Amino acid sequence: MADKFTIGVLTSGGDAPGMNAAIRAVVRTALANNMDVVGIKHGYEGLLNGEFNSMGPRDVGGILQRGGTVLLTSRSKHFIEPSGQRDAIRKLNGGGIDALIIIGGEGSMNGAYALSQQDVKVIGIPASIDNDIWGTSIAIGTDTAMNTIMDAVDKLRDTASSHQRAFLVETMGRNSGYLAVMAAIVCGAEVTLIPEVPVTVEEVALAIEDAYKRSKTHAIIINAEGSGIRTTELAEKIDKMDVGFTTRMTILGHIQRGGSPTAYDRLLASRMGVKAVEALVEGNHGVMTGLKGKGIDFVPLLDVITNKRKVNLEYYHMAKVLAR
Amino acid sequence: MADKFTIGVLTSGGDAPGMNAAIRAVVRTALANNMDVVGIKHGYEGLLNGEFNSMGPRDVGGILQRGGTVLLTSRSKHFIEPSGQRDAIRKLNGGGIDALIIIGGEGSMNGAYALSQQDVKVIGIPASIDNDIWGTSIAIGTDTAMNTIMDAVDKLRDTASSHQRAFLVETMGRNSGYLAVMAAIVCGAEVTLIPEVPVTVEEVALAIEDAYKRSKTHAIIINAEGSGIRTTELAEKIDKMDVGFTTRMTILGHIQRGGSPTAYDRLLASRMGVKAVEALVEGNHGVMTGLKGKGIDFVPLLDVITNKRKVNLEYYHMAKVLAR
Amino acid sequence: MADKFTIGVLTSGGDAPGMNAAIRAVVRTALANNMDVVGIKHGYEGLLNGEFNSMGPRDVGGILQRGGTVLLTSRSKHFIEPSGQRDAIRKLNGGGIDALIIIGGEGSMNGAYALSQQDVKVIGIPASIDNDIWGTSIAIGTDTAMNTIMDAVDKLRDTASSHQRAFLVETMGRNSGYLAVMAAIVCGAEVTLIPEVPVTVEEVALAIEDAYKRSKTHAIIINAEGSGIRTTELAEKIDKMDVGFTTRMTILGHIQRGGSPTAYDRLLASRMGVKAVEALVEGNHGVMTGLKGKGIDFVPLLDVITNKRKVNLEYYHMAKVLAR
Amino acid sequence: MADKFTIGVLTSGGDAPGMNAAIRAVVRTALANNMDVVGIKHGYEGLLNGEFNSMGPRDVGGILQRGGTVLLTSRSKHFIEPSGQRDAIRKLNGGGIDALIIIGGEGSMNGAYALSQQDVKVIGIPASIDNDIWGTSIAIGTDTAMNTIMDAVDKLRDTASSHQRAFLVETMGRNSGYLAVMAAIVCGAEVTLIPEVPVTVEEVALAIEDAYKRSKTHAIIINAEGSGIRTTELAEKIDKMDVGFTTRMTILGHIQRGGSPTAYDRLLASRMGVKAVEALVEGNHGVMTGLKGKGIDFVPLLDVITNKRKVNLEYYHMAKVLAR
Repeated sequence: MADKFTIGVLTSGGDAPGMNAAIRAVVRTALANNMDVVGIKHGYEGLLNGEFNSMGPRDVGGILQRGGTVLLTSRSKHFIEPSGQRDAIRKLNGGGIDALIIIGGEGSMNGAYALSQQDVKVIGIPASIDNDIWGTSIAIGTDTAMNTIMDAVDKLRDTASSHQRAFLVETMGRNSGYLAVMAAIVCGAEVTLIPEVPVTVEEVALAIEDAYKRSKTHAIIINAEGSGIRTTELAEKIDKMDVGFTTRMTILGHIQRGGSPTAYDRLLASRMGVKAVEALVEGNHGVMTGLKGKGIDFVPLLDVITNKRKVNLEYYHMAKVLAR
Repeated sequence: MADKFTIGVLTSGGDAPGMNAAIRAVVRTALANNMDVVGIKHGYEGLLNGEFNSMGPRDVGGILQRGGTVLLTSRSKHFIEPSGQRDAIRKLNGGGIDALIIIGGEGSMNGAYALSQQDVKVIGIPASIDNDIWGTSIAIGTDTAMNTIMDAVDKLRDTASSHQRAFLVETMGRNSGYLAVMAAIVCGAEVTLIPEVPVTVEEVALAIEDAYKRSKTHAIIINAEGSGIRTTELAEKIDKMDVGFTTRMTILGHIQRGGSPTAYDRLLASRMGVKAVEALVEGNHGVMTGLKGKGIDFVPLLDVITNKRKVNLEYYHMAKVLAR
Repeated sequence: MADKFTIGVLTSGGDAPGMNAAIRAVVRTALANNMDVVGIKHGYEGLLNGEFNSMGPRDVGGILQRGGTVLLTSRSKHFIEPSGQRDAIRKLNGGGIDALIIIGGEGSMNGAYALSQQDVKVIGIPASIDNDIWGTSIAIGTDTAMNTIMDAVDKLRDTASSHQRAFLVETMGRNSGYLAVMAAIVCGAEVTLIPEVPVTVEEVALAIEDAYKRSKTHAIIINAEGSGIRTTELAEKIDKMDVGFTTRMTILGHIQRGGSPTAYDRLLASRMGVKAVEALVEGNHGVMTGLKGKGIDFVPLLDVITNKRKVNLEYYHMAKVLAR
Repeated sequence: MADKFTIGVLTSGGDAPGMNAAIRAVVRTALANNMDVVGIKHGYEGLLNGEFNSMGPRDVGGILQRGGTVLLTSRSKHFIEPSGQRDAIRKLNGGGIDALIIIGGEGSMNGAYALSQQDVKVIGIPASIDNDIWGTSIAIGTDTAMNTIMDAVDKLRDTASSHQRAFLVETMGRNSGYLAVMAAIVCGAEVTLIPEVPVTVEEVALAIEDAYKRSKTHAIIINAEGSGIRTTELAEKIDKMDVGFTTRMTILGHIQRGGSPTAYDRLLASRMGVKAVEALVEGNHGVMTGLKGKGIDFVPLLDVITNKRKVNLEYYHMAKVLAR
């Protein structure tokens, strides 16, 4: 009697809200297709250590609404090397794992591709609050992060209006301005600093002063982590200039990674989890699930790791017009 | 010297979170294009009464995050008749309004089409928490309503797990099961009742009992308002059967229409508001903005009102698989 | 060598947000005092079944923010009888449990008193979203429930203002109007129906009409579950009268029991958990922790179960004045 | 015929959630007592500029749930001087204002006392997210700020558990550790830095390392703004030591001042607003409303400004025990 087809599932890299919803969808869809699922803890590191646990339908009960990932993640130096990947394959074989679903960001997809080149059946699921992964219009976790930023800035607007202040808000986004630009639109920010569009402190100061002259009751400045100007420096310098408003600073940090996932992220993660298992059922692999239009598509992992996602500057300009 | 091109904007029908974000985008984009904007209060009724106010950039300050609509809405019996529409056109001409942007649901688009047939330049913007408008993959307000339902059900899950209970939750959706089905996926509901798929009370009871047998700690049943079985009746009948769980009822009602719009709804509303004005700049009208794939498209109003949006039953089945 | 003093802890009756914070405080304070803790699952029923688990400091990690109770609750018919209580004591002795901390509502304190009469060292901690327990100015969970009601009504206000509607909102409160009256103040409700103050449908209708005449944009009516008029009936009857506003109904149900506890409830629960253990350290028992002024006091369990908490009608009248 | 007794109301200093609820209570209670109310914009500065507006019951409609203050606030240099206060009294007389209700923090109460010494009938209402005002067990706004901090830290806990990290969170609290200490209890923080208890970076590092050794999945460090160690410095230094966890930083900033007020703050503000007017009705003045036990008391303004509120270090130690 042959064993059931067994899927291993792991989460890797920076965690993103909705990872648990994807895990749940993988487990329950696999079971509906008469497959087994093995949860691998601590990402690639746990794969190398053989941290395997069989997962039944009740093991993913009550995790849909949880931030973070019940499988935990970590970084692995050993896995990056060919010898690490060879050890990983040995562990997969030892654990009777026939295919691997990897939920994570850009770096995780590199690992996924490397394994797929060694004949491991791999499906990637993109999860990243920065939305910096090529091949999907949006990644799991981005919508939740956006709402977290927005809720914070909405609170600033309350108090900003009382006091006529300019608020500097640092968002995540080391390489990509996506989060900052979209946040600027939904928060009504006057100025946005992103890695893709270099600006000077003087230009920022002028834009704030302009908002003051246009009788705005406050100004919101969104600064992506990787913009090139540190928020603490920006605050100090602007404070010394006379721009009309006094300035205050908020650095959101990792609260952007947490929180219960939004409906959008739960739905996206559920759909991608279902599709990932369906791909394996149909014999498809070496691909990542990607949102394209309304549907979930499959994108070759090679394309994912060789292309760079670019922020759409149309939105950058839209933010400016809408904040007039 | 000719006057500036003047756009009238109104909100109509049931209100939806994000309407204010759309109004803001219309006003600020129009000003960036050197056009004037007149806000019309109380929808078509206010149009007939000439409730017109010029809107400048500061008039839409601080409304981005507000639920409801600052322009208010109402129902108008007179406007439905040809004589009403003739009066409306007279008022538009009297007010120097060159084009009209109508933000609302399915019924509002009927009025928009009627005016467009009388040579009024009209652009529709779809806003409906039910997501029942043909021509856009999603309408403004749906994402917020979905998150409101989800937040409520998440609270039920806390207490359901403590007590082994089945919860009946009534959502909106008189003609469309969209909201209920999507809520079922993101809330992890065991059973969903929608207008499109008739079920009996006995079938619902069996599904709850089945969840009990599968060792689920609780069961969530989502009942769309228009499913054909009233929630109060369903609760009473199920309570008399022995399904393992005891049952409790929540009727969400109009809290689903309120709340600060989500990032998704603010972004969608902003993009549609921008596009609506751009359409007028380019001489386009008689259309509704619609989300198609990643982009905002224009759909003829005639198509909008003659086609019926259907819920995708693939999601209905997905909800069942994911709740196993 | 003597064993350590061992505290058993259980949650009983309807669950309330903050119960987990109290459990955490009991466990960690006990450990700091060199005592052991045994968690008893499923309340008195689990006590009778010997569902005992030793609890270390890591077992209460990550539960502070969770709604519901990790120890679960249930109702026990057997425990109400003397023979049940005798069996419970036998189980306590068999499990080496020297004292019992019981977190729950009014009914749970009856059980606590009964055990204390049989020489069991018992401390009660009041938890009830209804705030209907004598001896504490507020119980654990009430603040969270209040905020849940308030958030829901705030959403109604958004849409109410757009449409000129009256909203009927049913809150919990079978025997006590506390939650409904306080909600009325913090939500700005025009009318409140509570068990303690009988009113007729006609009086409610008149009050709504009066709000309409005073140019209010909407009216909020809070109906406590135990007011004597069912919300469904009230909605139907008022809809047939002409009161100016049209009416809509929301039944909140058990969402009021769920949700992550507020800061107030976490603090109250933490303080009470600490004090309960300190009482045992000092040899005190047969009492319930109660908030009195700023401090946590001890109230004899006999007083708790023989006195009835009354709602302060001063607040009932304040709600009316503030909604003018 | 004599004019009605007229109350002026203003908000001053840093804004706090709930100020609007207090304004609403003042206006509606005054009207119920047949008094008139004049709203004074921009605090003492607006008083000097005569920014007076008569306020009717509908002028405070829909403000109960809003953060910030509809009357706005500002700082006034002129008012601090005796000549400024003389000018203020002249303006009050000119505006027909018989008494003044001042909603604000510690500094605002100094101004209130100064005016009361010049025979102006003044009532103070304490509002401060820092809870640093003597004479009330809690000020308006503190509960909302606490919940804002808690919600942020809850999000960190999600991601902290995934990654084994230590999070440094900067809260407000220039002179008072109240907010930080209470936040530590409700957030489950391992370490708290407050102005009242000096610690070294090394001590903080040791405490984090200790949490790591005790197998905690993460560590939360709360740093009050005025603790003496800047958060950016703390992060840099700890990062260079080997404490087991890697560190990340969040600076909440002014989001702690914003947000819709909690139920607790709305209730407290409503009660204080009612009591302030009742005091004037009864001929009482020169006092501040203060929460004492369950009731609202009156405290002489002289006592308020000559005493210093101290943080209760019992809570500081409780936070440590509960985080074990």
